[in-house]
Amino acid sequence: MRETETPDHLITAAASAYAYPLLVKQLLVNSLSVRADQEITYRGELRYTFAAFHRRVGQLANALASLGVRAGSTVAVMDWDTHRYLESYFAIPMMGATIFTVNVRISAQQIAYTLNDARADVLIVNSEFLPVLEAIRGELKHVREVIVASDDTPMPSTSFAIAGEYEQLVSSMPEDFAFEDFDENTRAAIFYTTGTTGDPKGVCYSHRQIVLHTLATATTLCSPRTGQRLHRDDVYMPITPMFHVLAWGMPYIAVMLGLKIVLPGRYQPDTLLHLKKTERVTFSHCVPTILQMLLDAAARDAHDLSGWTMIIGGSALSPSMCRAALEQGIDVFAGYGMSETGPVAALSQFAPDVATAGIDESVRKRCMTGRPVPMVELRVVDAQMNDVPRDGRAQGEIVLRSPYLTPGYHNKPEASEALWEGGYLHTQDVAVMTPDGYVQIVDRIKDVIKTGGEWVSSIEIEALINELHGVEESAVIGVQDERWGERPKALIVLRPHATLDAQAVRAHLLGHADAKRISRYAVPEAERVIFVAAIPKTSVGKIDKKLLRQRFE
Amino acid sequence: MRETETPDHLITAAASAYAYPLLVKQLLVNSLSVRADQEITYRGELRYTFAAFHRRVGQLANALASLGVRAGSTVAVMDWDTHRYLESYFAIPMMGATIFTVNVRISAQQIAYTLNDARADVLIVNSEFLPVLEAIRGELKHVREVIVASDDTPMPSTSFAIAGEYEQLVSSMPEDFAFEDFDENTRAAIFYTTGTTGDPKGVCYSHRQIVLHTLATATTLCSPRTGQRLHRDDVYMPITPMFHVLAWGMPYIAVMLGLKIVLPGRYQPDTLLHLKKTERVTFSHCVPTILQMLLDAAARDAHDLSGWTMIIGGSALSPSMCRAALEQGIDVFAGYGMSETGPVAALSQFAPDVATAGIDESVRKRCMTGRPVPMVELRVVDAQMNDVPRDGRAQGEIVLRSPYLTPGYHNKPEASEALWEGGYLHTQDVAVMTPDGYVQIVDRIKDVIKTGGEWVSSIEIEALINELHGVEESAVIGVQDERWGERPKALIVLRPHATLDAQAVRAHLLGHADAKRISRYAVPEAERVIFVAAIPKTSVGKIDKKLLRQRFE
Repeated sequence: MRETETPDHLITAAASAYAYPLLVKQLLVNSLSVRADQEITYRGELRYTFAAFHRRVGQLANALASLGVRAGSTVAVMDWDTHRYLESYFAIPMMGATIFTVNVRISAQQIAYTLNDARADVLIVNSEFLPVLEAIRGELKHVREVIVASDDTPMPSTSFAIAGEYEQLVSSMPEDFAFEDFDENTRAAIFYTTGTTGDPKGVCYSHRQIVLHTLATATTLCSPRTGQRLHRDDVYMPITPMFHVLAWGMPYIAVMLGLKIVLPGRYQPDTLLHLKKTERVTFSHCVPTILQMLLDAAARDAHDLSGWTMIIGGSALSPSMCRAALEQGIDVFAGYGMSETGPVAALSQFAPDVATAGIDESVRKRCMTGRPVPMVELRVVDAQMNDVPRDGRAQGEIVLRSPYLTPGYHNKPEASEALWEGGYLHTQDVAVMTPDGYVQIVDRIKDVIKTGGEWVSSIEIEALINELHGVEESAVIGVQDERWGERPKALIVLRPHATLDAQAVRAHLLGHADAKRISRYAVPEAERVIFVAAIPKTSVGKIDKKLLRQRFE
Repeated sequence: MRETETPDHLITAAASAYAYPLLVKQLLVNSLSVRADQEITYRGELRYTFAAFHRRVGQLANALASLGVRAGSTVAVMDWDTHRYLESYFAIPMMGATIFTVNVRISAQQIAYTLNDARADVLIVNSEFLPVLEAIRGELKHVREVIVASDDTPMPSTSFAIAGEYEQLVSSMPEDFAFEDFDENTRAAIFYTTGTTGDPKGVCYSHRQIVLHTLATATTLCSPRTGQRLHRDDVYMPITPMFHVLAWGMPYIAVMLGLKIVLPGRYQPDTLLHLKKTERVTFSHCVPTILQMLLDAAARDAHDLSGWTMIIGGSALSPSMCRAALEQGIDVFAGYGMSETGPVAALSQFAPDVATAGIDESVRKRCMTGRPVPMVELRVVDAQMNDVPRDGRAQGEIVLRSPYLTPGYHNKPEASEALWEGGYLHTQDVAVMTPDGYVQIVDRIKDVIKTGGEWVSSIEIEALINELHGVEESAVIGVQDERWGERPKALIVLRPHATLDAQAVRAHLLGHADAKRISRYAVPEAERVIFVAAIPKTSVGKIDKKLLRQRFE
């Protein structure tokens, strides 16, 4: 080996060379250069250009600085989808502070918990949410300043000392603010996930993560030849609340690409459909419930939904809803991710040969969980972290690596370690994978039944049982078994006057096993098929399997 | 200010969390997951899948490791555009070593200089280049091992001890290689620029730079609604040599997006046109000379060039060539960058309103230098680093910041400092900028004439002089002037029997000044308009302005 003066594998930088950190502010640079006249509108009522947006970001930063916000501060936002939210997405992180996007749909108690846990010291709050804040006032430990945002509605009376009204405060400020450079690993945002158990957990996003998520997701979304894609002439309107996982990263992508942005305020089907028409919206994303609302409203009032590209996430897109949306001319497809993953991990964009394969195959593929996006290493693994065969049948947990996964929960070291066990982020989603990289989630890992060395999806067995005439609903859980580790136990609620016995259920399932649609291990023994009057549900209406497992332990 | 236990602005990572470094190997992950069966072909003669490509990258790494290549080693490649080159683009950096892409078009002396300067210890060389190596054998200081790549042609006799033939060496190796993680700022590649003066300068690219260039450029290329774009169904064939600035980053983009890749070997118009047809190539990039060659060959033999998207760089795309290419159905547009910039800094993709503005405007916009791409801060500044007005007329130097600019030249600290003076990379290109972000280069900074506080483009004055009847060619340089700093001096070669005097030249230019097409400062005094028999040229046929300036100093 030869000797060298300096290690040859690192590059010597000039002293004056700019070490470009990946910061949120840089997502704005190109749009300001090439699309400064592009529009941003709040409900079609307020309208300004990207150039004006940039000036308002400077004004908001000055307003926040005047209230003591500094690098390291946390500013919480409670608002509907407004131009104010978009300004906050940029101004707050660009100051080196953290934007805390408060989930306004959780309970007041949970909001209090998250505001305290995040140590939010300044609050930007839509006046509609003042009563909620009022209710938890005594519990808030860190909030120093409250800015109220009001759309000309009468301001509710409040006992908070208000620092000012958002618009008045911002518009009175100077436009220039010196946004300094800092470490790209600086925290830019925090959002709380609410699992079924325990306190909400804070998920943090750094500037580096946000920028890389923006670039990788934009590349994926823009790359198809045609269909299920985003392009520079699209008009973007979020229909996933902007408090939620930074609205899937889409507002940052829309700003980077210089798209026209339409902010719809509170989600009301009529307003959304009106804006779709008047502002010529072409690209949105939402949960299935909202899509159904839009389809219903459109059917009622004969709205034209064609030319709308829509990513569906949050929960599974059903084939029937997908078909209904396609019939309305919506280019609809599923996306996969969670708060911890940035969020976009996979998108159900077509493989090259799907587009021409007919409507049934199109619907089937659009409803799948998706295919991983560039830079994301998505594995489906067994309990020993070995990849399961990519045969569309073998089940395993989805584990991930990507440049924008959260490195851990805020102040929850044990949960953080569990999330990252073995160096991969554990999604707790159980899935199968096809040879061409399509992923399909079949269950949550805590609900999957591990029996005889195989993983059996409880949801899959339930669906098969529900096919039987006379079944109202069913729940399948794993119960401990000395020989097999676990065995499935099926609880079945019959419709009035229906007759069905355990042997008939077994015979039905064994038929599916013979046809290789499920494993034989998935068929419960007759004594583990029981008929019940009702199945317990959680507060959001899901089957409470945790309770069932406790009951049958 | 409140006290906190840990700084709130940084995110606490779980001990097991994977700190994802931006490494070249990750550009492969997604394609292997979703397009493992995609094709890579060398001239249509050899053909394998992405899955096989991945295995061969492992084999090449094992072959190189067996020759002592380690993290920190430099492996030089001298080859045409082959599957071997693509394998080297990945295997060498993925080992933590540096790929040195040798410019095979420069002189043997310059090749020797660059091999020594880069301390290349292993060489992969196409047998066609062995005679060149032979000629400089005595001067090579570091080369330990030579791998010869041969396309079944008879191997030239050589005095080098050959470690093996590429294909034999690679195919005999195991496929698994443990590509470790390392610092994303590790050097991945080095390439030498050959300026008009001095020794070639080594430009380094880190893994981080390559990955960010890939993401940002892919986003830009994929984002237009239609036209001047790349998409996942494109078939990619480089026609810029792969030794050149990592062929504009396109091979990495093609691999990341899982495109079919066609490697044409040595550039022969017939082969290129044949591959375009048989392999259904849809996306390429080249210099104007090559485009002209293709247009000529196609005209001769009636080839169909339609459905081919082509980026033109290296030198300016002329309107007449652009129009000719458009007439052949080539979607042609200009790109801007240099070795030091990664390279892509700007692309002449249409602004939203250009597509419908007619053929003349289309040609004009396609031939402009371009519009900056996302993440690139492109400024046009005066000597005090103030932005010049974006009016399409005010001239200044293009300076840049982006996440993939070289931080400095290899072992050239003074040149590196000059490159980065004031914290921006100085391109030495003088340009104007329009309000909607189009950049047009008007001159090189060393040729621009600084007079009366204004910058005057020598090329612009030359073009106006050349309009005059009787002018064969002209050269305009700046000469020192006590009052004005510099003043333009015009040298004119007349056609045989032409008559023209200095006053007529001045009158012509003053007419253009009256029409506000040039500044009045741009018009040389009569005594600075001189007629000469010939204008000296450099070895590549450009006007030798350096020599002219020395002569008239």
